[in-house]
Amino acid sequence: MMRLTVRTTRRCELVDITDQVAGAVKKSGVTEGILLVYCPHTTAGITINENADPSVSLDITMKTGKIIDRRDPDYRHGEGNSDGHVKSSLVGASETLVIENGEPVLGTWQGIFFTEFDGPRTRSVFLKIIPG
Amino acid sequence: MMRLTVRTTRRCELVDITDQVAGAVKKSGVTEGILLVYCPHTTAGITINENADPSVSLDITMKTGKIIDRRDPDYRHGEGNSDGHVKSSLVGASETLVIENGEPVLGTWQGIFFTEFDGPRTRSVFLKIIPG
Amino acid sequence: MMRLTVRTTRRCELVDITDQVAGAVKKSGVTEGILLVYCPHTTAGITINENADPSVSLDITMKTGKIIDRRDPDYRHGEGNSDGHVKSSLVGASETLVIENGEPVLGTWQGIFFTEFDGPRTRSVFLKIIPG
Repeated sequence: MMRLTVRTTRRCELVDITDQVAGAVKKSGVTEGILLVYCPHTTAGITINENADPSVSLDITMKTGKIIDRRDPDYRHGEGNSDGHVKSSLVGASETLVIENGEPVLGTWQGIFFTEFDGPRTRSVFLKIIPG
Repeated sequence: MMRLTVRTTRRCELVDITDQVAGAVKKSGVTEGILLVYCPHTTAGITINENADPSVSLDITMKTGKIIDRRDPDYRHGEGNSDGHVKSSLVGASETLVIENGEPVLGTWQGIFFTEFDGPRTRSVFLKIIPG
Repeated sequence: MMRLTVRTTRRCELVDITDQVAGAVKKSGVTEGILLVYCPHTTAGITINENADPSVSLDITMKTGKIIDRRDPDYRHGEGNSDGHVKSSLVGASETLVIENGEPVLGTWQGIFFTEFDGPRTRSVFLKIIPG
């Protein structure tokens, strides 16, 4: 298993980790298989979406923030980050990708993002490759 | 890696790809392992849900469309499909299944769906099998 | 493939299955690889979130219930559980984890949960390990 470090700078944001992930896959020397990109945090997640226009990430942050609002009087968890926990379960803790020719296979517009929902923090991402 | 082609006919719909996926697994000759069903598009995804009653798919399309509405004045991405990008990140780019006896293992009511959120388009699905 | 049984006691709840999953991994004897935790039901799912404070699970159940309300006159599926199907597609049917030293690798605050959205019922969870 490999580990990446991701530094986030806002409470909620999508951080493009495509290059870091692709670099780690290259370093592993594995040419064919699958790759698990895993977030070990409970107020964050991993998603795949467009990284050509940065406004897409901003729209995802904005819209999920409207749907899962930060202040709901019915939240019971006392840390003020229940919204982040809910978003984490909806976005999901991981993404799995195909590896071909030593690279993660992405669609034309796809990038891999760390989704921060309770930052800014220094976060980790776990990478696990299964050759095959 | 194998590729499927999916033709969608509406802006938002769930397309049942269970038979196409099962056919590809059979063709691979792999009897035991896991299967990654991956969507390389940023306004679409993959989900597993009921395929016995088609109204379930319609309810998923309807309800996600109400929650993540198409027209929000705060969207910044200029293509008019920000809703599709947000839905894509919530539904997720892939699903992973168990393969046993040469078939994807599904629950009684489960089918595999391509979720279109900005169609109609001709789309691709990547399939990757890891024997084991 | 291994199977777990999960008994749920409410219509909507998160059931912590971390110990059951870790026990099955230990029993398998596999020390390194990946683990697929798969839900074969269409009104339930699998998520990873905080299991230290039980109020986090309650907040997830509460908030998803507000967003995807049970009674929407536009639901077409006649069983009164369309909300459960929608939640199932947003939370997702599975999670994949890394296995190291014979254990699923989790972050400090992470636990593995079965997410019930149409209980109470007796449910199954499939586990599949790929060594590597």
